Amino acid sequence: MVKYNRGLDATFQALADPTRRAIVSALARGQASVSQLARPHRMSLPAVMKHLRVLERAGLVTQRKLGRTRRCRLAARPLKRAEAWIAQYRAFWETQFDSLDRYLAQNPKEEPKWPKSK
Amino acid sequence: MVKYNRGLDATFQALADPTRRAIVSALARGQASVSQLARPHRMSLPAVMKHLRVLERAGLVTQRKLGRTRRCRLAARPLKRAEAWIAQYRAFWETQFDSLDRYLAQNPKEEPKWPKSK
Repeated sequence: MVKYNRGLDATFQALADPTRRAIVSALARGQASVSQLARPHRMSLPAVMKHLRVLERAGLVTQRKLGRTRRCRLAARPLKRAEAWIAQYRAFWETQFDSLDRYLAQNPKEEPKWPKSK
Repeated sequence: MVKYNRGLDATFQALADPTRRAIVSALARGQASVSQLARPHRMSLPAVMKHLRVLERAGLVTQRKLGRTRRCRLAARPLKRAEAWIAQYRAFWETQFDSLDRYLAQNPKEEPKWPKSK
C-alpha cells in the first residue's frame, strides 16, 4: 500500500472532478479523440486538454498520435489500485451498516444515534 | 451516480493525501481522539485537525465530545460510494489486463506496445 502512496494521491486528485470522472467513463467504453471527449461537456478543447493533462499525470489516460488527431485511452492500473485501497475497508463499512440495521430493528421508533464502537 | 457527484468530489479530494488516508486506516480499526490520531504522524494537533476538517467536510469522519476529549469516528457511506464508482470499471481493467497477458504470451520477446482497442 505504502509504495503506491504518491500514485494514489494523483489518482484520487484526478477523480475529484466530475468532468474528469465523465472522461474516465467515456474512455472505459473505448478510445476517443480530444474533440470527441469535449463534445458532451460543451467545453473548449483547451479546457478539456487541461483535464486530460491531470488524468495523464495520474497515469489514468495515455495519448498517442494517429495521423492528425490524438487518441486518448484509459489505463487500467491506477483505477485498480485506487479500488483496492478503498476495498480494504469493505469489512468496516459492512459491519457499520449491519450495526445500524440491527439498531433500527431494535429501536424502530427512535432516531438513529451514534452507533457503538466495535 | 450523478446525484453523488458533489459527494464524490469531496471524498476523492479527501483521499488524495497520505496523512488523511492514514487517518482513515486508523479509524477503520476503531474510534480515536485527535491526539491519538496525531501521535503516529508526529504532527502538531492543529495540523491533524486541519486534515480532520477536510475528512469531516467530505462526510468521512464525524466527531463527538466525550468529556474533555473529542472522539473521531469513520463514516462508512462515502467510502462505499467511492468504491462503487470505481468498481463500475472493474470489467474494463480486467479486460485490459487479460489483453496484455494474451499479448505477452504471444510475443514473449517484445516490449508491450499500445494494446488494441476493444
